[in-house]
Amino acid sequence: MGIDPGLNTTGYAVISREGPRLCLREAGVIKSRRADTLPERLREIHDGLSEVFSAHSIDLMALEQLFSHYERPRTAILMGHARGVICLAAALAGVPVEHYEPTRVKKVMTGNGRAPKSQMQLAVKMQLNLQSVPEPADVADAMAISLCGHYLANNPIDQALA
Amino acid sequence: MGIDPGLNTTGYAVISREGPRLCLREAGVIKSRRADTLPERLREIHDGLSEVFSAHSIDLMALEQLFSHYERPRTAILMGHARGVICLAAALAGVPVEHYEPTRVKKVMTGNGRAPKSQMQLAVKMQLNLQSVPEPADVADAMAISLCGHYLANNPIDQALA
Repeated sequence: MGIDPGLNTTGYAVISREGPRLCLREAGVIKSRRADTLPERLREIHDGLSEVFSAHSIDLMALEQLFSHYERPRTAILMGHARGVICLAAALAGVPVEHYEPTRVKKVMTGNGRAPKSQMQLAVKMQLNLQSVPEPADVADAMAISLCGHYLANNPIDQALA
Repeated sequence: MGIDPGLNTTGYAVISREGPRLCLREAGVIKSRRADTLPERLREIHDGLSEVFSAHSIDLMALEQLFSHYERPRTAILMGHARGVICLAAALAGVPVEHYEPTRVKKVMTGNGRAPKSQMQLAVKMQLNLQSVPEPADVADAMAISLCGHYLANNPIDQALA
């Protein structure tokens, strides 16, 4: 499972290996209502994630690294709240969590740590055998993070190179 | 209920009104183990808070405001994770959450928004009829926040002046 965490919109993607192929099982966004209080919004994220955990047998949660948004501290702190709830959901489900820098995800997916968005979308499309490039961005990012988590958890060579 | 949130140590205090007096029902700290992973630590906070929620009938959670630690973004983001889990616990228990700036808590407790720690401890001791000044700091702060929450929720004049 890959997660692109956010207080407004959390993208998620669940992938699995079917023989030699990687398959997308489910992907989507969990949105919280801006008009709601912070605790209510966190509960909406918690409830949405719980549904995904119930529907699939997850063995790893891959998540974007936490310290990549220093330049906007208010956003980063709010995102920290959402991320806390997301990590808690994994802990309550007994699922280990791995954190990856965005540049590492890009490097693992394309060989280029500064790959543009279009290149990342194409890499996700090809590696998951999708009909079209994934959208919106939160879902595409979650798919990329799930693939990165899969490769690094299962291939020591990728791990060493990344 | 007042909470001084932190990833390492979360202070909490539960107070109630008994006739004209305010009484301390329970106070303490929830500590997470530094050696554990972030998700495990968040679960320890979640479990600790759940116990407090089970033991008392809470009608308000008062919490320190979130944007008062800009100068140390890494700490603030980690604290955001703990704070997210704390807000979620309140939402799951159906308890409303109020956020207060530290200066506001000091002003409500002592009349001085820059009151030193010793003055705050003395104010908490007197207002809760304690035998000695409360310690450690996380617990004393949680008591002060709980008192602030109580006063502002129950007294429109305090609200207007604070």
